[in-house]
Amino acid sequence: MGTFFDTICAPATSVGTGAVSLVRISGPQTHAAVDRVVRFRSGTAADAPGYSLKFGEIADLDEVLVSLFRAPRSYTGEDAAEICCHASPFIVSSLLERLEEAGCRLAEPGEFTRRAFVNGRMDLAQAEAVADVIAASSAEQHRVAMNQLRGGYSAELRNLRRQLLELTALMELELDFSEEDVEFADRARLRTLLDTACSHCRQLADSFRLGNAVKNGVPVAIVGAPNSGKSTLLNALLRDDRAIVSDIPGTTRDTVEETCVIGGVLFRFIDTAGIRASDDEIERLGIERTFRKISEAEIVLGVIDATDSPAAIAEAVDGIVGKLEPKSQKMILLANKMDQAAAFHCRRSGLPVMEISAKTGQGLDGLRSALSAHAGLVSASGTLVTNARHAAALRSATNALRAVSDGLDRGLPNDLLAEDLRSALTALGSITGEITTDEVLGEIFSKFCIGK
Amino acid sequence: MGTFFDTICAPATSVGTGAVSLVRISGPQTHAAVDRVVRFRSGTAADAPGYSLKFGEIADLDEVLVSLFRAPRSYTGEDAAEICCHASPFIVSSLLERLEEAGCRLAEPGEFTRRAFVNGRMDLAQAEAVADVIAASSAEQHRVAMNQLRGGYSAELRNLRRQLLELTALMELELDFSEEDVEFADRARLRTLLDTACSHCRQLADSFRLGNAVKNGVPVAIVGAPNSGKSTLLNALLRDDRAIVSDIPGTTRDTVEETCVIGGVLFRFIDTAGIRASDDEIERLGIERTFRKISEAEIVLGVIDATDSPAAIAEAVDGIVGKLEPKSQKMILLANKMDQAAAFHCRRSGLPVMEISAKTGQGLDGLRSALSAHAGLVSASGTLVTNARHAAALRSATNALRAVSDGLDRGLPNDLLAEDLRSALTALGSITGEITTDEVLGEIFSKFCIGK
Repeated sequence: MGTFFDTICAPATSVGTGAVSLVRISGPQTHAAVDRVVRFRSGTAADAPGYSLKFGEIADLDEVLVSLFRAPRSYTGEDAAEICCHASPFIVSSLLERLEEAGCRLAEPGEFTRRAFVNGRMDLAQAEAVADVIAASSAEQHRVAMNQLRGGYSAELRNLRRQLLELTALMELELDFSEEDVEFADRARLRTLLDTACSHCRQLADSFRLGNAVKNGVPVAIVGAPNSGKSTLLNALLRDDRAIVSDIPGTTRDTVEETCVIGGVLFRFIDTAGIRASDDEIERLGIERTFRKISEAEIVLGVIDATDSPAAIAEAVDGIVGKLEPKSQKMILLANKMDQAAAFHCRRSGLPVMEISAKTGQGLDGLRSALSAHAGLVSASGTLVTNARHAAALRSATNALRAVSDGLDRGLPNDLLAEDLRSALTALGSITGEITTDEVLGEIFSKFCIGK
Repeated sequence: MGTFFDTICAPATSVGTGAVSLVRISGPQTHAAVDRVVRFRSGTAADAPGYSLKFGEIADLDEVLVSLFRAPRSYTGEDAAEICCHASPFIVSSLLERLEEAGCRLAEPGEFTRRAFVNGRMDLAQAEAVADVIAASSAEQHRVAMNQLRGGYSAELRNLRRQLLELTALMELELDFSEEDVEFADRARLRTLLDTACSHCRQLADSFRLGNAVKNGVPVAIVGAPNSGKSTLLNALLRDDRAIVSDIPGTTRDTVEETCVIGGVLFRFIDTAGIRASDDEIERLGIERTFRKISEAEIVLGVIDATDSPAAIAEAVDGIVGKLEPKSQKMILLANKMDQAAAFHCRRSGLPVMEISAKTGQGLDGLRSALSAHAGLVSASGTLVTNARHAAALRSATNALRAVSDGLDRGLPNDLLAEDLRSALTALGSITGEITTDEVLGEIFSKFCIGK
């Protein structure tokens, strides 16, 4: 506590058409500044206990409700206040001006949460989760972000770090007695601990692929020949579901991406309308991009026109399966236009086929269930890493632990092994912020919005 | 109190990119519903005194700060609560769902403020001011709305109403003794009271022109011959001032309107680029609309090209002054392009002329001061009526009082005069809500946003 000498203020609610707005203040001069700006019916902010709520008046400006907090029992761990005023941009900007005159300064993006971290109110992984919680638009995104915010993920990392510290202790014990040429019976235990930690680290690092899918939407590619009904299918999935639908900004003209929540999970649909053989250079570049998008998809929906001849259908299926070669991806073949086709036969076995009509909606509920079921597998798989910075740290910890393991096999001296162990510890510590630099902190908190 | 049996909830902050969101609850089941949705570290909402602030947790959703209020010490005058959660649309909608499951229903637009009115926490004029306070974007708009919200305007109306009640009492006194053919010495007093009330009413009704200007921007028309520099002037005024600038939606293509705050007052600039003689029917209609806009302007800026010949300048001035014939409007002639002209002479006297260059910015500070000075006159003129409904009621009260005055002159019987007096009282009572109907209330509060 007491790390910061200045007092910061910022609006904590977005400016828009609401009824009220909140302005947040934190730092040692909070109560003095509030008393200079707000006149209370009775008493002062300086005399009020923590967690009190007072009605007051800002001269010629507004009547406000003020929540008062005392260090360390506040979001930031400092003396803090929240002023609830009418939701007028004029009032909010005038109030901020008066707070500045009373000795506060405008907060930088993420500065409240940064203070909460520095004052030990939350670790770095929790601080980063704050932004994810705010951005969550599906139940699954929210569950993962909340688990991180509430420290479940941090606890897992702390546990992993504790194991590594135990490993280090064992090694240093050997080191101490190395001149006496003693070898410990605990070498088996050391190996077990190392393997467990290493596989746990790798598992967490690997979960990023799914975690990223949950956070940014499970990527689903829709592929198929022209006129098989890909766009109709996309529109039907988006329209029928009364869901949060939005264009993802910055996508290329070649692939259209739209998101939609199905069964509490965010999906990101990639329409690959542009796939066809082409001699045009620019078009080929677009197609390459599309193929890259498809290779990143978790699920590939292959759309077949069921009204085609059996030969044409076989060729289309080969085209989809053969060219795309999905490996870790889930592939679902969709026999589309079943409202106009008598039956659907596909000689290729081993692939799930669903009969649908994007036009009439037939079979779409089944498709949605299949997508949700896959998402269910996603959410059942324990802790998910959703943050690229954490994934990189976990990968580097995994590599360091592999080096320790190799060294152990090759009989390298313990002091060399201990160095790799320390680098794994550092990588893990950087996630929760036990080990960090101002530069990293600046990078992390600059992505926050003002007032958080 | 206790007028409402159901409990309402709604988001009170706009959904956007803030750090936190507020959800507001009001009604008899408030504390029970909060206890069903939020688990507090200690105690319950039901046991908490009014004006308390508690930290709690919504299972699997969020950690929240809850402000608790007890009737009648709340915005609505009922038991009420505000839940401060993370600013995620997902969290807010999930929280509202849980509150609905706990027995609340979603509030209609303005329902919180409507309850505050019905429960006697504010009168109707104050309730209407809430929306104006939120919408205020200039200091002057805000001052007028705050005066109305804090009851200054209502007090003035109550005072006026008291005078009319005294008048009615005097008349009824005469009425009681009319069979004895007594005439009171107080007839002079009656006349004085009547004249005072009538002129006060008319003055308030007349203030609507200015009040409306303050609320929606002081309308300033920019007129002049083609190429005199009207658009350059408009752009210079808007650009140089780091002010709130926006297009007003719904304006016709014929006139461009833009707003900007100068010296704390909102101005609405009307660019009349389209004025010229024309035989084209559609163009003529546009020109007519422009002329109507000019006739509604408070201030007319007549732009003259100072590089023209003296004869051309004289003709231009005649054109502006002769054709527009401003009456109650303030007219300022602007000799533009002074960076290219040696001097400016205008034979027409009695009109203020300012030498400017819209291109170089010369003289624009002076022009801004002149505009502010006019606005200063606006703000100095006491209570301003900014609400069209109030203005209509005040006009009808004025007319009723004039009828009383006429009747007095013509010796009409007191019972007829008393009827007109009552209709004036009803008109005034409808402003603050002493006399109102459900229909009027519905009309007023439906214009509010949800959560207010």
